[in-house]
Amino acid sequence: MTTLLALYRRPDGGEDALATFLRRYHDEHLPLVAQTPGLRATRVQRVTQALMGDSDVILVTAMDFDDRAALDEGLASDAMRQAGRNLREIAPGLATLLVVEDEGG
Amino acid sequence: MTTLLALYRRPDGGEDALATFLRRYHDEHLPLVAQTPGLRATRVQRVTQALMGDSDVILVTAMDFDDRAALDEGLASDAMRQAGRNLREIAPGLATLLVVEDEGG
Repeated sequence: MTTLLALYRRPDGGEDALATFLRRYHDEHLPLVAQTPGLRATRVQRVTQALMGDSDVILVTAMDFDDRAALDEGLASDAMRQAGRNLREIAPGLATLLVVEDEGG
Repeated sequence: MTTLLALYRRPDGGEDALATFLRRYHDEHLPLVAQTPGLRATRVQRVTQALMGDSDVILVTAMDFDDRAALDEGLASDAMRQAGRNLREIAPGLATLLVVEDEGG
């Protein structure tokens, strides 16, 4: 399994800015992501507490693909390109995207 | 579903320090975590690339519990207390622990 893990930091602008980001993330971004070929599962989770270490991450989304080749194909798709453009609009500079791989897999 | 998401940054000391951390994480830390009551699943993933945003995170572990109450019970257990002490020994200052919750759940 290869996972694209997106970590989103809190936007400037208080609760209004956060609410706007979350709304646009769900209304605009996730529907684009959902069209990505090879995407096996998407899990969106809200950060409710940081127990160790400081963090301004407020949302974590895991997008699973069969393997790195499937992820690369997905990343090159029109859906992901549109999702990337959307992300730069709704969360400029707020996202970190990590490619993570199951150990031994 | 409530998930305890652990993000581990790269230790100082180059590849030797990284190899030592990973060895001790698997040999010492994960067996302690595995004894946590209420833990439903553990997924350990290595970061292989950062696609957007800088990151020094090299390992991500997701530990799933049924809900926040089950997580709190797990955190208060002897197993998790021992795991926490072990973590401060093998990865001092390198871990961020986030509580994340499925949206709508």
